[in-house]
Order: sequence, then structure tokens, then C-alpha cells
Amino acid sequence: MKSIKTRAAVAWAAGEPLKIEEVDLAPPQKGEVLVRIVATGVCHTDAFTLSGEDPEGLFPAILGHEGAGIVEAVGEGVTLVAVGDHVIPLYTPECGKCKFCLSGKTNLCQAIRNTQGKGVMPDGTSRFSIKGQPIYHYMGTSTFAEHTVVPEIALAKIPKDAPLEKVCLLGCGVTTGMGAVTNTAKVKVGDTVAVFGLGGIGLSVLIGAKMANAGRIIAIDINEDKFEIAKQLGATDVINPKDYDKPIQEVIVDMTEGGVDYSFECIGNVNVMRSALECCHKGWGESIIIGVAGAGQEISTRPFQLVTGRVWRGSAFGGVKGRSQLPDYVQRYMDGEFELDTFITHTMPLEDINTAFDLMHEGKSIRSVVHF
Amino acid sequence: MKSIKTRAAVAWAAGEPLKIEEVDLAPPQKGEVLVRIVATGVCHTDAFTLSGEDPEGLFPAILGHEGAGIVEAVGEGVTLVAVGDHVIPLYTPECGKCKFCLSGKTNLCQAIRNTQGKGVMPDGTSRFSIKGQPIYHYMGTSTFAEHTVVPEIALAKIPKDAPLEKVCLLGCGVTTGMGAVTNTAKVKVGDTVAVFGLGGIGLSVLIGAKMANAGRIIAIDINEDKFEIAKQLGATDVINPKDYDKPIQEVIVDMTEGGVDYSFECIGNVNVMRSALECCHKGWGESIIIGVAGAGQEISTRPFQLVTGRVWRGSAFGGVKGRSQLPDYVQRYMDGEFELDTFITHTMPLEDINTAFDLMHEGKSIRSVVHF
Repeated sequence: MKSIKTRAAVAWAAGEPLKIEEVDLAPPQKGEVLVRIVATGVCHTDAFTLSGEDPEGLFPAILGHEGAGIVEAVGEGVTLVAVGDHVIPLYTPECGKCKFCLSGKTNLCQAIRNTQGKGVMPDGTSRFSIKGQPIYHYMGTSTFAEHTVVPEIALAKIPKDAPLEKVCLLGCGVTTGMGAVTNTAKVKVGDTVAVFGLGGIGLSVLIGAKMANAGRIIAIDINEDKFEIAKQLGATDVINPKDYDKPIQEVIVDMTEGGVDYSFECIGNVNVMRSALECCHKGWGESIIIGVAGAGQEISTRPFQLVTGRVWRGSAFGGVKGRSQLPDYVQRYMDGEFELDTFITHTMPLEDINTAFDLMHEGKSIRSVVHF
Repeated sequence: MKSIKTRAAVAWAAGEPLKIEEVDLAPPQKGEVLVRIVATGVCHTDAFTLSGEDPEGLFPAILGHEGAGIVEAVGEGVTLVAVGDHVIPLYTPECGKCKFCLSGKTNLCQAIRNTQGKGVMPDGTSRFSIKGQPIYHYMGTSTFAEHTVVPEIALAKIPKDAPLEKVCLLGCGVTTGMGAVTNTAKVKVGDTVAVFGLGGIGLSVLIGAKMANAGRIIAIDINEDKFEIAKQLGATDVINPKDYDKPIQEVIVDMTEGGVDYSFECIGNVNVMRSALECCHKGWGESIIIGVAGAGQEISTRPFQLVTGRVWRGSAFGGVKGRSQLPDYVQRYMDGEFELDTFITHTMPLEDINTAFDLMHEGKSIRSVVHF
């Protein structure tokens, strides 16, 4: 097999718009898979890295981590997928063999963590290049390319009748939010829940909370444009912190007679993370951090908050194991348990991908989905 | 019933030695019980309040919260104990009726929290006075008095053959440490554990970890005098942070190939709380704060620590429900499952109680037990 030419949106430098380029893609090596990406969401994490704030950010790179596609070729020894399989690339892979996978306690497979963080495949090199200059991979997925190469342990095989231009959202945001409710918090019937931030993740938390039959679901945002959709997805209360003179955690403790059972921070703001913890009920309330904070930022609180029974935890990719559990999410979507159309506010061809970032920064989109 | 005279160590003001006084003790009112204290431990929390650093500290007061005694009289309507019963006063009561007790999720009964924090009985008044001047109760227990009055919901009834001069330690420190291991962390066979601070609480955590058959038990202190007893109680490794050039959390992560399953902060130092969290294993490690920090102090860390799977929680009185579960701890002690003599490094009559504080401040005691 030889290298192929593909189209991709290349991030040449932090803070600059992506440029559509013809990129050389080397064939999949041992344990690797060539995937044709059919659609990809544009997520805040892509924007975070593009902004230059991500300390792990490398340039030039092909961003994108919320895609879906079809296997076009497999490298030596690949057994987990075959040509023609429909797949969702996983930025959290599942090797099934490392200490983390074997623990049964976490989805944070570490098999390829080091090379993934360095923007290269497990052998230490990139498959992407332009005129001989290597272009970095991103989160092991690089879905802003019509073709990409990913390790086989980083692909969830999904049913062929799943609409790729919708279920691509299960490659990150929607799964992250729903999984945080189900796997990390384990919300039960009748529980009271607070959701801070009504972007794609926060709205997915609402869906998860509704599906878990939470009793009261409080949605919090300073952008009231999000309130209507929040209510549609299950929020029983919508509140804007700007409407109150006191800290929002006190408002929530008052309105819930002591605090919520579970709270979710879906923004990445360390001050909001504190509010989310402190609005939890004494004795048992748990707060789950989902948002990604900027480099070097820290959370803080009085330890008394924890000694009196609150629990502070976090969630990555909703605690979902990609290969073994993500296909279930796709199936549940296809069974009509939840919908994705509400999330997809914009669609566009690859050539217009910078518009997706503009819409996000202007707070006008939930998700833009790019089609190839 | 009339008031009685009793002897007590009175804390007249922050930072001053206690003074032995003859105190007037009003009879137990409705739902209250008169207890003759036979023995009481002197705990760091007593010293913390006496120092003036405790924002809830009130003076003049009768401190003490780690006692054991015998019921001498009961007020109107008392049904939970009877004259002659042997009891351990509970600073964390168990009413069995409040939202917290009924939740099944916490031991933090709130039935009398407000008045207890104000140094008075549930009717808003104190039973202690000297020449008509009210003396505040402390933590609802005030065990530094030969006789005290406590609400019936704040008494654990224990077997009459339990040695009160030993099991008084189960009224706070030992139960707090053991319970944090069993109830809060739920340490399992083979787990790796780190214990920060080898005072009474830390040593009790060691006992709990040993009883839970933890695999590796790492004890950390800057006072190496504690290492011998730590090893006797089950520590497999003892380390002094001063022996290393790098942060102790990194030392522990290295020596455990990734971090511990559970860590316990038993000091009340917010910097150590951070180390305790960050020495936990990525993906699943949990850190439990037991120590009480000074007023206004805050813990902090990067949220990435939580998003990558660590959990931060706290424990008060080891998560133990006093009336329903503490008697089991007493029974287990009597059955020989653990010993208490190691903890009792000094005993003394009430008149010498200030010596107990001196020994504690000099790091020379684990526990001093005062006999009446």
C-alpha cells in the first residue's frame, strides 16, 4: 500500500484559521487502520487547542476528535475491525490489556497515552505530511481530514445503518455528558441535579438526567438563549446567576432545601467548579467536573465542604469504554431513546469549517457538523 | 431533681490553661441525660478550640468529646437509655428521624446541629454554670467534667463489661480513623493505602487498613519517632518527606507504580491534603480528608487531577452512626479484633489535664486519658 492524498483542515499555528490542504497520508502500519471520515463535529476542545491555551497543543496539526467514518484499509495484524466497517474514532482508546483497562474501575486506557499526547502514532511518527513536512495527529483521531489513520484499539465498531452524520456526536460531547450522569455520578430516580453550562456537554447531561428519571433538574447559564432548549431536554428549572445578588451555590441550596444530590460542571471554569461543589447537599452531594480548565488553573474550596460529606470527582468521555460500551450508545440512539438533531444546529462542508469556530465563539451554535 | 455540684476543667478563654472548678449542673431536661464521666481522652480538636483558631469556639466552656461514663439520671421522656447504662457521648448524634439519618447516606445527623454549635442544649440554654454565670457546652458532650448532661440521641449504649477508661477513645479518634477506612473509603483486600500524619487518627487508620487486609500501607510523617509504632500497627513502609528533594506525592507515585488506591489526610494541613490527593492512582484513587484545617484555609489542585479519575472526599467520625454502629466497634474491641493500649501513652487525674495538652503540643503523646 502506498500513501494517498486526502483533504484536511490544517491548523498551522495557534490562533490562526484552519487552512484546507491536500495532505499526504501514509498507509496504516501494524495495528493501524485507515478510516474515511464521513462527518465530524467541531467541539470546544478543538477550539481550546487552536487558541493556544492547551499546554499539550502542537502545531501544525490536523484537529478534530468527534467523527464517524468507514474503514478503508487495515494495517498488519489488525483483527478488531475490517474494511467496510463503520466506526467512531476514540480519543480514549480501549486496549483491554493495560493496568487501567484490566482494573475495571476506569475508561482511561493508557496504552498509547504518551504518543497520542505527542501528536504521533504509537511508533513515534506521523502519518500526515505536506511536501515531506510532518503534520501532527490530534487526540489520536484527527477527524478534520477526509481520511485519517488511527490505531485499531481506538475505533468503536458501530451498526452500518447508524447515520454517521448524526452519531459522530457520540464520539465526544453527547457521550461525555450522558456518561457522566450514568457512569460517573450514577444518578438515580428522583435525584436532584444541577447542570452548570448549557453547551453541548451540559445539554447532554440534561438528556442523561432525564433518562435517569432525576426528579428536579436545574440548568444554569448566563446565556438565557439556552433556556428554551434546556427545558425541552428536561430541565425543570432554569436560572441565570446574573439575576441574583448572592453566590449561585447559595441560591441553589435555598431552592433545593439543602442542595443537590449531583452537580455537573460543563464549562471548564474553575470558579464555577467551586460553585458546583458547594451547591451539593451536605452529607452526600457529589460534584462532577467535566469541563476542561485552562493551563495552570486550579480549583479550591474549604476542606470542610468535603469533611461534611460532599464528594468532588471528575469525568472524562463520560467514563465510557469506547470499544465495549460506545456501540450501546449508538444502538440506544437508533432505538429512539434520545435524539441528536437538537444538537446539530449547523452543518457545512469542510471548506467552511472556520465558520463552525466562529459560530461557537459567538455562542450561536450547539454543534456544527462538518461533512466531507 | 435539683442541680448538682460537679468538678470540671473550665476553659475560661482562648489560649489559657484549663482551670479545675466546682460547677453547678442543672438537671437533665426533656430528652436529656445526666452522665457521670469515668474517663475521657484529650484530642487535638480540644486543643484546636482551646487555641482560639476554631471559628466556632466559645468561652467559657467545658471542652472534651472523647469520653465514656454511666447514666446517673434521665430527663422526661427519655427512652433510649436508663440509669446505670454505660454510654459513650456522641458529638455526632443519631436522632434516626432527620433527613440526614433517614437518607441512609451519611452519619451527619443534623437534629441538634444548630444549638450544639452554639454551645447550648437543644432548648437554647446551658446546664453548666458557676455562680450563676452560664458555661458553654462543647460539641454537645463536655466530657472534661465529672458529670455532664447530653441529649439522649447523643449517647451510644455499650456493654457494661467494656473498660470505660479504654473505650472512651472510641468516642472520637480511633473510631474516626477506623471508620474512614471501612465506611468512607471502603478499602478492600490488597489495596494500597497512604496515611499522612501518625497521630491518634493516623494510627487508627493504620489499624483499619490492616484489618481490611490492605496490601501495602505507607505511613508518612516528619516525626520519625512515630515510625516504630506505625510499623507495629501494620505500616509496610514508613517515609519522611524531609528525606526527599521532590514532592512527597511524586515519591509515593514512583514507589507504587502509579499511586495509591486510597490516601488519608490525618493532620489538618491543607498542603498535605493536596499531596494526599495527588499521590492517588490515576483512574480510581480516592483521597479522604479527616484532619480539620484552620479557619479560612482552603485546599486546591488542578481540576485535571479529578478529571483523570481521582476522587476527593472527607470523613467525619469515620462515617459511623453513633447509636446504631458504635456499639459494634466496642464489641469488636472486646472480641480482641484490635487493641487500644498502644494509643494510651499517658493517664492522669482531672487535676493534671493541662499536662495532657502540653504532651500533645510536644508531640510526646498519642492519647492522654483523664480519669475522674
